[in-house]
Amino acid sequence: MTIEIIPIHLKREIEIGEKLVDLLLKTKFQDGDILVVTQKIISKQEGRIVDLSTVIPSILAQGIGSEYKKDPQLLEVILSESKRIVRMENGIIIVETKNGFICANAGVDESNVPNGFVTLLPLDPDKSAQNLREEILKKSGKSIAVLISDTFGRPFRLGQTDCAIGVSGIDSILNYVGKKDTFGKLLRVTEMAIADEICSASELVMGKTTGCPATIIRNYKFTPSNDSAKSLIRPKDEDLFR
Amino acid sequence: MTIEIIPIHLKREIEIGEKLVDLLLKTKFQDGDILVVTQKIISKQEGRIVDLSTVIPSILAQGIGSEYKKDPQLLEVILSESKRIVRMENGIIIVETKNGFICANAGVDESNVPNGFVTLLPLDPDKSAQNLREEILKKSGKSIAVLISDTFGRPFRLGQTDCAIGVSGIDSILNYVGKKDTFGKLLRVTEMAIADEICSASELVMGKTTGCPATIIRNYKFTPSNDSAKSLIRPKDEDLFR
Repeated sequence: MTIEIIPIHLKREIEIGEKLVDLLLKTKFQDGDILVVTQKIISKQEGRIVDLSTVIPSILAQGIGSEYKKDPQLLEVILSESKRIVRMENGIIIVETKNGFICANAGVDESNVPNGFVTLLPLDPDKSAQNLREEILKKSGKSIAVLISDTFGRPFRLGQTDCAIGVSGIDSILNYVGKKDTFGKLLRVTEMAIADEICSASELVMGKTTGCPATIIRNYKFTPSNDSAKSLIRPKDEDLFR
Repeated sequence: MTIEIIPIHLKREIEIGEKLVDLLLKTKFQDGDILVVTQKIISKQEGRIVDLSTVIPSILAQGIGSEYKKDPQLLEVILSESKRIVRMENGIIIVETKNGFICANAGVDESNVPNGFVTLLPLDPDKSAQNLREEILKKSGKSIAVLISDTFGRPFRLGQTDCAIGVSGIDSILNYVGKKDTFGKLLRVTEMAIADEICSASELVMGKTTGCPATIIRNYKFTPSNDSAKSLIRPKDEDLFR
């Protein structure tokens, strides 16, 4: 069946603290839709935005700033959002965030916010996804899944792709282990990161459309689930590249 | 605009050496479509399939096989497809293929072929994509782009996603550098790996459908280009994780 990736247009930027669900309710959801929203509007809704001029940089942030010619206040915010530095080379800072995601700059982002401000990742993106899913169910009666996406780089390959950092109502990974191929052979380990693939599909529409921080993926069949984006995090001892 | 991911159903497996384009021509292509086909059917068309019983394992393949309890003939094929071993730990072999892709087992795959056989990646997947694009243009008059996809794992995150190994007629990466955000600020480096995102979107349909090794992505606006999947390979000296 043909899957559709449908843009949701918001007429204006969300205000800090404004309820996103109210802006989305003009959308005609259908049962079984997957709503994908970018981290940025969730962070704004939740007030996860920092005025850099109020930040006092630590000695470490000052040191990195002078070494890399980067703003020590921005660096301080990045360090505060990190559990661990994974790599710090060539002016690039890859960290493990407090939620366990490995990404550049701890997801701290200067784009699409006023000058001098940055957004942080949502405190608990799974919870943000769950809240939005439950509010849409309550207000529209439609049972959907919600993914929160962010744009991550990756080793080995150039360019960024959108990945899921918050998941509610759908499995993050679709497991084919034990299933058979068309020749009746057991498939090797095949666990598809469908939550990431859905976010990447969504980005194709978002990236091409101004004022489109959300999409609907329609006609993707899935079984409702209580899974979390944490299922997408490779445990350190199973990772050959940390 | 809504993007569609349309499955292409093939009634039967492609025979070794059979022309894929003839099986695809029942499909009604439109100008500007993106055709995504899996590596597996391209490899079959091109005869990139090996009977393991004919393979004589090297001393190294025998050694790895006894260490990892793996088939030395399969290991020999993996080594022959590799330019360099990137990691070999816990029974997992990550290599750089002769075309420069970093992936497990050099893309050598036992699934969806008869017992005792494996497929290799196409010799030159960009060329395979280009040939298919030109044949479709010649036979149907439609100007499309073609991507060849394969399923890759990745560091940091569990689960696999589909990526592009062959590209023809579209840019692999969409570059936003120098563009401004909704607040008029210059965007940070933002290079989206759209060829990989399109392959991931396509996998959502392929994975859910039996006998669906190809899809059409419709309504994704792009400028025709002579780019290659090689643009997606991060040079070793820009990679913090090799």
